[in-house]
Amino acid sequence: MQVDRVYEGRILSLDLMDVEMENGVRAAREIVRHAGAVAVLARTPDGRYALVRQYRKAVERDMLEVVAGILEPNEEPEHAARREIREETGHHVRTLKKLGTIYPSPGYTDERIHLFFAELESEAGASDPDHDEHLELVLMSRDEIEEGLRKGEIQDGKTLAAWLLAEK
Amino acid sequence: MQVDRVYEGRILSLDLMDVEMENGVRAAREIVRHAGAVAVLARTPDGRYALVRQYRKAVERDMLEVVAGILEPNEEPEHAARREIREETGHHVRTLKKLGTIYPSPGYTDERIHLFFAELESEAGASDPDHDEHLELVLMSRDEIEEGLRKGEIQDGKTLAAWLLAEK
Repeated sequence: MQVDRVYEGRILSLDLMDVEMENGVRAAREIVRHAGAVAVLARTPDGRYALVRQYRKAVERDMLEVVAGILEPNEEPEHAARREIREETGHHVRTLKKLGTIYPSPGYTDERIHLFFAELESEAGASDPDHDEHLELVLMSRDEIEEGLRKGEIQDGKTLAAWLLAEK
Repeated sequence: MQVDRVYEGRILSLDLMDVEMENGVRAAREIVRHAGAVAVLARTPDGRYALVRQYRKAVERDMLEVVAGILEPNEEPEHAARREIREETGHHVRTLKKLGTIYPSPGYTDERIHLFFAELESEAGASDPDHDEHLELVLMSRDEIEEGLRKGEIQDGKTLAAWLLAEK
């Protein structure tokens, strides 16, 4: 199997692979390599959910998403989840529970997202986003999220997945 | 804003962009361009769901996913949904309903997935997958899917999203 790295970058790399399938057919695959990420459905003591709204250049629009971020080298997902909660909401974490793992687009990327559910402490300090992020914290009730899903105002894949698994 | 196309391929391209954010900070963005896709939660007349199992080279494992595929140039999502159902299940479509749209990974790709729910006709013909796919059709009950979600046997993001929206 031939692998050709055509790009190596900051948050992703791109490999071209020539693969042979079970049925013997040879096929080319373009594969995006990604460090992986965490996403956290975070609930405040008053029962609201802490989402973040931010402009996403890739899709050229604002997106409403659960707290999330990319894993740092050798970082444990739980550590990354606590770090992202602190950076994006300013809240301390009371409890953190693993919900599951998803592959957002397994046809072409190895990105894996570790999903968590967090209960937050009430007092919020200052959030501390990465210097190249510009985030707005949005506290939503359960009904507001349900309505946002029905109306298509929440369209981020990992956010839907976390909401589904938190119910299971 | 400077855009540099570093790769142009079969199912995706890669752009490097130098963007200025609302707060004035300049940041580099690596953005994967994708044609977009459809995904269909398809139910047979006996109440089972038609999922497909296939080996995904990007994640180096078998994945259990709803029927799905990439949009062809200028193809309407509903047309692509009907085409993928025919190719991957061999069934005819009785009804097709739009569930919504998700962005699987808006931090770095413009990929948009149009989600549908389909009621299938009972008689199945031969499926007709793309020559570089090798798919196994898996009929699952509602309880089996719920169990697969809880146990982490279903980890494909678009499949979780379609399941969530089909309930709304």
